Amino acid sequence: MKPKIALYPGTFDPITNGHIDIIERAGNIFDGVIVAVAESSAKQPMFPLDKRKKLIEIATAHCKNLQIISFDNLLVDLAEEIGTKIIVRGLRAVSDFEYELQMGYANASLDPEIETIYLMPNLPNAFISSSVVRTILCHNGNVSHLVPKSIMPLLKSENDVLDI
Amino acid sequence: MKPKIALYPGTFDPITNGHIDIIERAGNIFDGVIVAVAESSAKQPMFPLDKRKKLIEIATAHCKNLQIISFDNLLVDLAEEIGTKIIVRGLRAVSDFEYELQMGYANASLDPEIETIYLMPNLPNAFISSSVVRTILCHNGNVSHLVPKSIMPLLKSENDVLDI
Amino acid sequence: MKPKIALYPGTFDPITNGHIDIIERAGNIFDGVIVAVAESSAKQPMFPLDKRKKLIEIATAHCKNLQIISFDNLLVDLAEEIGTKIIVRGLRAVSDFEYELQMGYANASLDPEIETIYLMPNLPNAFISSSVVRTILCHNGNVSHLVPKSIMPLLKSENDVLDI
Amino acid sequence: MKPKIALYPGTFDPITNGHIDIIERAGNIFDGVIVAVAESSAKQPMFPLDKRKKLIEIATAHCKNLQIISFDNLLVDLAEEIGTKIIVRGLRAVSDFEYELQMGYANASLDPEIETIYLMPNLPNAFISSSVVRTILCHNGNVSHLVPKSIMPLLKSENDVLDI
Amino acid sequence: MKPKIALYPGTFDPITNGHIDIIERAGNIFDGVIVAVAESSAKQPMFPLDKRKKLIEIATAHCKNLQIISFDNLLVDLAEEIGTKIIVRGLRAVSDFEYELQMGYANASLDPEIETIYLMPNLPNAFISSSVVRTILCHNGNVSHLVPKSIMPLLKSENDVLDI
Amino acid sequence: MKPKIALYPGTFDPITNGHIDIIERAGNIFDGVIVAVAESSAKQPMFPLDKRKKLIEIATAHCKNLQIISFDNLLVDLAEEIGTKIIVRGLRAVSDFEYELQMGYANASLDPEIETIYLMPNLPNAFISSSVVRTILCHNGNVSHLVPKSIMPLLKSENDVLDI
Repeated sequence: MKPKIALYPGTFDPITNGHIDIIERAGNIFDGVIVAVAESSAKQPMFPLDKRKKLIEIATAHCKNLQIISFDNLLVDLAEEIGTKIIVRGLRAVSDFEYELQMGYANASLDPEIETIYLMPNLPNAFISSSVVRTILCHNGNVSHLVPKSIMPLLKSENDVLDI
Repeated sequence: MKPKIALYPGTFDPITNGHIDIIERAGNIFDGVIVAVAESSAKQPMFPLDKRKKLIEIATAHCKNLQIISFDNLLVDLAEEIGTKIIVRGLRAVSDFEYELQMGYANASLDPEIETIYLMPNLPNAFISSSVVRTILCHNGNVSHLVPKSIMPLLKSENDVLDI
Repeated sequence: MKPKIALYPGTFDPITNGHIDIIERAGNIFDGVIVAVAESSAKQPMFPLDKRKKLIEIATAHCKNLQIISFDNLLVDLAEEIGTKIIVRGLRAVSDFEYELQMGYANASLDPEIETIYLMPNLPNAFISSSVVRTILCHNGNVSHLVPKSIMPLLKSENDVLDI
Repeated sequence: MKPKIALYPGTFDPITNGHIDIIERAGNIFDGVIVAVAESSAKQPMFPLDKRKKLIEIATAHCKNLQIISFDNLLVDLAEEIGTKIIVRGLRAVSDFEYELQMGYANASLDPEIETIYLMPNLPNAFISSSVVRTILCHNGNVSHLVPKSIMPLLKSENDVLDI
Repeated sequence: MKPKIALYPGTFDPITNGHIDIIERAGNIFDGVIVAVAESSAKQPMFPLDKRKKLIEIATAHCKNLQIISFDNLLVDLAEEIGTKIIVRGLRAVSDFEYELQMGYANASLDPEIETIYLMPNLPNAFISSSVVRTILCHNGNVSHLVPKSIMPLLKSENDVLDI
Repeated sequence: MKPKIALYPGTFDPITNGHIDIIERAGNIFDGVIVAVAESSAKQPMFPLDKRKKLIEIATAHCKNLQIISFDNLLVDLAEEIGTKIIVRGLRAVSDFEYELQMGYANASLDPEIETIYLMPNLPNAFISSSVVRTILCHNGNVSHLVPKSIMPLLKSENDVLDI
């Protein structure tokens, strides 16, 4: 049997406990997981690409068979390059679901062999989003229950640097 | 019995009949209402903070036990300062609902004692939003059925000043 | 100030941790809570009315200022009899939300002074429903994490009697 | 690497092209698929259990590493018996999504190691349901574009027998 | 130009102000409207088919170019018989929308030339449903604001006969 | 009978197969269709207004009784100018639906005689949006299955000019 590698794309601005939950679940189901960090320059991320990758590295130090990459092309082209057909996405809420349906069908229209599988985060993470984390960070609030403990020091120093 | 004070936060850009409906309902249920106007500078409001507060003052002149404040910190921190645990939010539609769920759980994660209660505006106001009002104002359309009559003169002069 | 009494109607077939969460929240916000158990004979409940009331009594023994009643008339008529205008409902998911919107507006059309307030259960209870509990009970599964510990003995004996 | 077996539960009353699509996708992602037909006597299926299994057998004759079983216990107990932790579900629409969220969290509360993965059927099958097929069959309409061609003869003879 | 006839199907158990609103709007847009009352025996209607037709007749006495028929076949077959390709449906809420999407695509799969057009009822009727009306009727509540005034006497006598 | 003219407004940035499907359906139902291209300068369109109109012209060359105009005023004012009361909108997904409800009720509040009718695109176009097309174009991906074949050459040259 050929190993099954799952591609988990996102902006991860920053990585949250919800993302970690999906990464760990994908790791249980598949033989390997590639976390693909979108540059997403159009979204004007709060954290630069390198920082976002660094935070994921630290937060996933305990995960086996995991690779972290960045990309700035179409997801189907990235999957082609990597040689996998399996994309993993987390589903949190109705608005997510609508968006994911649209993206899933767009990707399938570009490459019919792509299989997108959807996982729901466990309940404590069901409503965490990077956007909520950023909002709390901007007001100097506490996010230690929303993100991996290990990245907390870097989130703080980032704030100092950015003077947010 | 200690008086129950409800905190009603929002951007109010500008206040609409839907907001007034929620303020009046909250006033019927609780012993006092504090309307908290978010600075929301990131949203680039159409009306500056002072103007938004002024419009609310005029539109709520008939409401008893009402206070109008502005804030630029986390809602849970504002509630802590004020000494209330009750937040009131209007619910209009599914997308509202999803957003409110996420915000409600985010706030509960920061302060588990916070109680967010949701009210639905009465039918004639069920689909009014500040965003619709702004769109109509930008095209010199008539909003007199969507906002309190008493603020109409100020909305018009604002348009003159802004030359929209 | 006149005491604010909240009316919390439902079928409670059987009461779950989600219901308890809403009852406790309503108790924090209002001066008293009346749990109103609908006969709901059309729904063919799994537990008879008396049993449903008994389970609520046991499960809410720790709640102050709580009363448990049953009803078989329109909710607005019940509220009129009791002399309160405040109805409390839990909101769990989109389908709930749609249903609640429709019921809320139907009740408001019958009595415009009725105020329905909506509370969201805390996250661990966000997806519990009586229907899920009944399904698990019917297959002799474990529901001890979904319902109050104190009612577990009665749920079991019920199953024995019903030979489900 | 231990083979990954996916459990695909449902009532399949009757199997549709949408089900076949999910079975084929699951077969591409995992090393084997077990189609588990719920007795669902409470739903009063149109087709008896044996017929539903027979239809699946015929319709999936081309699928490798596939097994068809029936069950009448809790899904988590079935998964335990079979020795897999992976459940596959198709997601078609918002109401599906809400229901699946609730079921997924209920199953996770019974066995935290269960992983439910969700797949979206391809577009031509995105709105097919067994319920639509049954409605059309009841009115002697044409369902040959909604179900596998190979089961058409059996659906017809069933109608004859049932005199629908 | 050939006259455009719209087919408006439903159970109408009983007809509500929401239905009347859609009938009037369809009458403004098209050259004629055919109200098609589904037998819907599987739904076990509260009012028998003849009574439902009678109520519609009375309630639509003011509408021109209107015809009332009943049907018990597939909607696409009925449209074929009548010789129109235009079906009109009212859209009230998200759950409606999902259901309508599914039915719309099912009908399109049976006859690709069928055009289903969706109208939203005006705000005061946006949350009225026959189901709400039946619930209120069963508890002897007042439905005079939810249904056409002209059918009120017949709804009452029906209740007397049925002893509801 | 006076001819029925439908107004189909949008940004069309760029026109997709989904738009074409709605235009053709509206053309089957009504006696004429006016495609009204919103300037939408606030949305910062990818294609300038003239280009968007040009693309529609080419893509609809086969449609009879069609007119293409641009507008920058309120939709109800445009409808007034044109002398029609019928607005056509495509409905794709729940988020669309919510937005359309809000816009529809806003327009009805400005002119109660306006009738908005909603059409669902056929399945292959059910998840196409201009936004998906723009995203793929920005990454030099293939959109030939999402937009009319006839406009492909112009989309490419645009990319060359813009050096995207």
